[in-house]
Amino acid sequence: MSELQDLTIAVLGGTGPQGRGLARRFARAGLTVVLGSRAAERAEATAAELAEVTGRPITGASNAAAAAAGDVVLVVVPWDGHKELLESLREALAGKIVVDCVNPLGFDKQGPFALKVEEGSATQQAAAVLPESRVVGAFHNVSAVLLEDDSIESVDTDVLVLGDDREATDLVQALASVVPGMRGVYGGRIRNAHQVEAFTANLIAVNRRYKAHAGVRVTDV
Amino acid sequence: MSELQDLTIAVLGGTGPQGRGLARRFARAGLTVVLGSRAAERAEATAAELAEVTGRPITGASNAAAAAAGDVVLVVVPWDGHKELLESLREALAGKIVVDCVNPLGFDKQGPFALKVEEGSATQQAAAVLPESRVVGAFHNVSAVLLEDDSIESVDTDVLVLGDDREATDLVQALASVVPGMRGVYGGRIRNAHQVEAFTANLIAVNRRYKAHAGVRVTDV
Repeated sequence: MSELQDLTIAVLGGTGPQGRGLARRFARAGLTVVLGSRAAERAEATAAELAEVTGRPITGASNAAAAAAGDVVLVVVPWDGHKELLESLREALAGKIVVDCVNPLGFDKQGPFALKVEEGSATQQAAAVLPESRVVGAFHNVSAVLLEDDSIESVDTDVLVLGDDREATDLVQALASVVPGMRGVYGGRIRNAHQVEAFTANLIAVNRRYKAHAGVRVTDV
Repeated sequence: MSELQDLTIAVLGGTGPQGRGLARRFARAGLTVVLGSRAAERAEATAAELAEVTGRPITGASNAAAAAAGDVVLVVVPWDGHKELLESLREALAGKIVVDCVNPLGFDKQGPFALKVEEGSATQQAAAVLPESRVVGAFHNVSAVLLEDDSIESVDTDVLVLGDDREATDLVQALASVVPGMRGVYGGRIRNAHQVEAFTANLIAVNRRYKAHAGVRVTDV
């Protein structure tokens, strides 16, 4: 596997807070980043903003063009439309490391809750839809607010990386660890992705109770 | 709600590693503990051992007698038989705080995985079976190895406490926090218990990969 510096990191859904925040941090760490969005113009506009604040050459494109350009492709899109987007990108994503970051959550008067997913989890759905890609789950529990706040030098959270392909999970752990404070930790096989995605509902409940931007650390590792 | 010192803490399934370990730590913190087991003699034998090492008067009894004696009743039994046990104790547990600590997990050649639970989670099953109890979920992710090792003064983990009854979750947070190093953190409503239970599968995967006894800390709280 090539060094991270030699790879292009694509962020599909890169105009939302989570995608923007990850792109910003990766660019600040010196990586080559391309943002994707449904509308190429929106991705270009966000990329221009991020290029200005980070001083790095971030580009923007349609999700399809970003998927084609990326060596490692992060999927940071809304759960609604997740499957259809990935189906449309199956060929572009073949052979690539695809990092699913999506949390299938619902909200009602009582707050957030985990949605049932036929395949078990968003990550497993991605793996089912993209049989020729190397699908990994990661970055589920990272606060977008912290990622986008440049006054926060160190993002105090571990990133649980889920997957059955050791080389791919190792690379994504290294990717998470380029952000100061963040650490990529192997979190188990892809069949255990659901609870890590769903745990975001608990963190949102924590945030409401404690007025926090909570993250997770794994102790004794 | 009474002070913890005035309450009797019952630990059903108190002869297994997790139940023994929690009982040991609660007793060391000065709380009154009664162990329950299917066979009263086994509970008595384990209680006598713990009384000797902790210097505290721990008693042992059948699960039914322990449930009757406890003000706060921890359920630390195997998932197999969980529902039947609670059904048999419905009257004894009425009006009490019942803390479900059970992780419905399976194991195969690929390691641990979360089992599907009809009610959503062990905690929700307990709530369904015990409509007159105040059911809380907690202590899912605490390493029994660390709890039972007296050379470890500080158990480096948070305990996520799940429930819809604020007074009950506050009390269980306080209970978790009597153990040096441990901290009870509100983790959301009971409908979000599944992922906390299932996350134990991820921690077991972490333990295998890193040769650790992993726990969880919630950051920014």
